[in-house]
Amino acid sequence: MESVDVVVVGGGFAGLVAAREIQKAGRSVVVLEARERVGGRIKNHVFDDGTVVEAGGAWVGPTQDRVLALIDELGIGLFPTFDDGEGILAIDGAIRRYADESLGFDAATLADVGETQAELEALAATVPTDAPWEAPDARLLDDQTFDAWLVANTKTDGGLRFWRMLVPAIFCAEATQMSLLHGLFYVHSGGMIDRLIATGGGAQESRVVGGTQSIALALADDLGDAVRLEAPVREIRQGDDGVEVDYAGGTIVAERVVVSVPPALAARIRYVPALPALRDQLTQQMPMGFVIKCQVRYATPFWRADGLSGFALSVEDPVSVTFDGSPADGACGVMTAFVEADQAVALTALDADERQGKVIASLVRLYGPAAADPVEYLETNWAEEEWSRGCYVGHLGTGAWTRYAATLREPVGAVHWAGTETADLWNGYMDGAVRSGERAAGEVLAALWAREVLHVNG
Amino acid sequence: MESVDVVVVGGGFAGLVAAREIQKAGRSVVVLEARERVGGRIKNHVFDDGTVVEAGGAWVGPTQDRVLALIDELGIGLFPTFDDGEGILAIDGAIRRYADESLGFDAATLADVGETQAELEALAATVPTDAPWEAPDARLLDDQTFDAWLVANTKTDGGLRFWRMLVPAIFCAEATQMSLLHGLFYVHSGGMIDRLIATGGGAQESRVVGGTQSIALALADDLGDAVRLEAPVREIRQGDDGVEVDYAGGTIVAERVVVSVPPALAARIRYVPALPALRDQLTQQMPMGFVIKCQVRYATPFWRADGLSGFALSVEDPVSVTFDGSPADGACGVMTAFVEADQAVALTALDADERQGKVIASLVRLYGPAAADPVEYLETNWAEEEWSRGCYVGHLGTGAWTRYAATLREPVGAVHWAGTETADLWNGYMDGAVRSGERAAGEVLAALWAREVLHVNG
Repeated sequence: MESVDVVVVGGGFAGLVAAREIQKAGRSVVVLEARERVGGRIKNHVFDDGTVVEAGGAWVGPTQDRVLALIDELGIGLFPTFDDGEGILAIDGAIRRYADESLGFDAATLADVGETQAELEALAATVPTDAPWEAPDARLLDDQTFDAWLVANTKTDGGLRFWRMLVPAIFCAEATQMSLLHGLFYVHSGGMIDRLIATGGGAQESRVVGGTQSIALALADDLGDAVRLEAPVREIRQGDDGVEVDYAGGTIVAERVVVSVPPALAARIRYVPALPALRDQLTQQMPMGFVIKCQVRYATPFWRADGLSGFALSVEDPVSVTFDGSPADGACGVMTAFVEADQAVALTALDADERQGKVIASLVRLYGPAAADPVEYLETNWAEEEWSRGCYVGHLGTGAWTRYAATLREPVGAVHWAGTETADLWNGYMDGAVRSGERAAGEVLAALWAREVLHVNG
Repeated sequence: MESVDVVVVGGGFAGLVAAREIQKAGRSVVVLEARERVGGRIKNHVFDDGTVVEAGGAWVGPTQDRVLALIDELGIGLFPTFDDGEGILAIDGAIRRYADESLGFDAATLADVGETQAELEALAATVPTDAPWEAPDARLLDDQTFDAWLVANTKTDGGLRFWRMLVPAIFCAEATQMSLLHGLFYVHSGGMIDRLIATGGGAQESRVVGGTQSIALALADDLGDAVRLEAPVREIRQGDDGVEVDYAGGTIVAERVVVSVPPALAARIRYVPALPALRDQLTQQMPMGFVIKCQVRYATPFWRADGLSGFALSVEDPVSVTFDGSPADGACGVMTAFVEADQAVALTALDADERQGKVIASLVRLYGPAAADPVEYLETNWAEEEWSRGCYVGHLGTGAWTRYAATLREPVGAVHWAGTETADLWNGYMDGAVRSGERAAGEVLAALWAREVLHVNG
C-alpha cells in the first residue's frame, strides 16, 4: 500500500497551501482532488478572444496578507479593479447615478445605515474571530437571526432595505438564513463592513493577472506528482498504525490527514471510527451560500464612455451587484454580474435561456440597450457544482455556532480540518483559505515532529 | 451484474414497508441496510432479566393509523403505557406533584399557555402538511425562529418557560434552532399539541409487546433474503438503462431506487449525475435532533407505591422528561428518561460515568433516594450513531422550508425519497415512516407499470 506522511483531501487554495508547507518542511504529501482541475471555488474561464475571467473568486485587497504574500512569492502580478466613474443604484423602479459615498441612497436612509453600521460593528468587535462562541453574549446573539436584529435596529424602511440588499451580496444568503452571531463573526473576520464592500481599499481592490486560478495552477505545478486529479475520497480510517484514505485510485496510508473541503462536503466522506456527535452535527448545519455568477463579454466596456464605473447595486433585480470585470487593457468589456441568495434560488428553477434572458434584462435596465448584445455569456451556478455545492462560503443558522462550532477546527485524532470556513481572518475569502492551509500544515508538522521526538526518546 | 426491479436504501420502518409493498405487487426488491440490524431509529434492548426496552422510538397512539394497521396485520400486541397516579413538575428548585391537567403549573401560567396554544394551533391549521411552503404567510412564518414567536406571544415568564421546555421534548431541538413554520408544520402533522404530548389519547398511549423493533424484525423476516445487512450504499448512478447502486457487497442494477434515510444522511451517498442544486441545499440544512435516551431498570416500579405515574417534566434538570417504561406485568421497574437538545449537547461533552451520574441525580431529585440504585442502566446518544446521527427526526432552521423543501419528496429521475422526514402526517414518528414507505412504493409501482405499458404499446 502506498504510504506518505500526509494526505490532503481537496485541491483548493487551502489544500494546496497546506501541501506546499508540508512539502517545504521535507515531509511527503499527496493531494487528492475530486475534480479534473485544482482551485476549488476558484476557476478561470477563457473567452473566445483569449480574455481570462473568473467563474468563482476574483479579487484580493488590503489586509489579505497571506494570499498577497503568496501571490508575490509566486511572481504573479496584480492590477487594479476598474472603478472610475459613477455608480448605480436601482430602486423603486428608478435608476439613480451617484458620484459620492452615498451609494445612491437618500440622506435619511444614509443616516440610519450609518448608525446601524456603527452599532453592528461595535457588536462585531465583541465577537472573537477565533472563538465566536466565547463572545460575551454569544448565546443571545446566536439564538436570533441577523434579520431580526436588523428589523429591531433600523429606524427607516430604506435602512432595512439597504441591509437586506447588502447581506446577500456579502454572504450569498438572506439575513433570515443566518444567526446574528454568524453575521457579526463574518463582518469582524473581514475587517468590518467598509473593508468587505469596498473596491479601492477593500476586498475588491485588485485583480490577478492571468486570473485567480493561476495561483492554484502555480501551486499545483510546484507540487508536481503530489497532486492527483479526479480522485474523490470516499473513506478515512484511523487506526493505531496511522490513517488509511480510500479514494477513486486506491488506498493511501498516512500519519496525518488534512481535510480541506467545506464542512457540508466533509460530511460526505465516511470516517471510521465515526466522527464525534458534536462535530457531525456541525457538518449537518453549515450550508453553502447560493450564488450564480455571470461574466458577460461585450465588444467594449461601453459603460465607461457613459461615465459609469460598472459598479451597481439593485434592491429589486435578479442581478443585485455588478462590477467591471474587463481585462486590464480594456481590449473588450466584461460585466461581472451576481445573482444572489433568493434571486439565485428563483433563477435556478428556470431553464438556461430564460435565466440568461433575466440576467441580460437586468444589465439592460442598469446600463442601457448596449447591454442587450453580449459577445459571450458565462454563468456558473455554484450550488450545482458537485464538489463545491455553493459559494462563496458556508454559513450557520440560529443556534449552531454556540452549540457545535467549537469543533470547526478541532482535529479528530489524526484528521485535521482546513478550508476558508475554518479561518478566523478573512473567512470565506481566498485569504482565509490560505491562512487555514498554513494553520493546518502547522498542526500536522508539529504532530509529526512530536511523534518523532517521542519515538527517539521512547 | 445483479438485477432487480427496485433497490431500497435503508432498512428502517420506511424502507422495510416500501419493500414489502413492492414485493407484494410481484416486483423484485433488495433492501440495503448499513447496520448489522434492521429498524433504523427503532432498536430493542434486552436487559439481563429478559425485560425488553426500546433504545429508540417506543410508543404508538390514536390516529397513527398506518403503523397501527401494520402492527395488527403482523399479529403483534399492544399494551397501555402505565400512567396511573400523579405527575411531577420540577421547577425553581422545587418538586410539584399534581393530579389534574395542570402539569404542575400555576393558574396564571396555565392561562397564558392555553391562549398561546390556541393561537399556535390556529396558525398551525393554516399550514398544509403536504406543502408547508404554500401556507398563506409561509415566507413570514419561515423567516422567524419558533422562539421569537414564543417570546412575542407569551404574556408570562412561566408561559415562555413552559414552551421552552416543551419544544425540546417534542423536537429534540431548542425553539431557537427551528423556524416557526417548521414548528407549525410539525404540530399540525401530529394532530396538534395535546395529541403530541398526551399518554392516554395521544402519541404515547400504547406500547408494543416485544418492543417496537419486533415490527421491523417481522417485516424483515417476511422479506427474507431481500434484506442485506452491513451493506452501506456509496453511490447511485442513473443512466438510460436504469440505476446502478454501489454498496459494500457489490453493485446492483435496478429500474427504480427508494432512498429511505433522512436527508442529512441521504446527502452522504454520491449521486451520478449529481443531484439538483435545490435538493442538495435541502440536505445541507435539515439537521437531526439531539437526544440521549436512557432506560434505567430498578428491582420494582417503586414510584407507583408512592402514587406517582412515572411521568415527570423538569425545566431545569439534565433529564427533562420521564415516563414509566416498565414491562406490562410490572415484574421490574423501568424509568424512561430523556436528555434533550441543549441538555444533551452539554452531557455529550462529559465522560460516561459523569453523564450517568447526572442522569441518576436527576431521577433521585424527581423520585427520591430509591432512584439512586438502578439494577441496569442503558443510554443511547443517537447523535453518535453513524447511521442515524440524531433523533427523533430532522428539523429545518429559518428560511429552509420555503426555499428548498419542495424537493423533500420530489423524485429525481428514478430515485425516490422515503423516511419519516418526508411524511405529511405524523412526521418524525413511526407512523410517518410507514406512511412514507407506502407512498414511495406507490410512486415506484406506478412508474414500473407506466414503463411496461409504454413498452407494450411502443
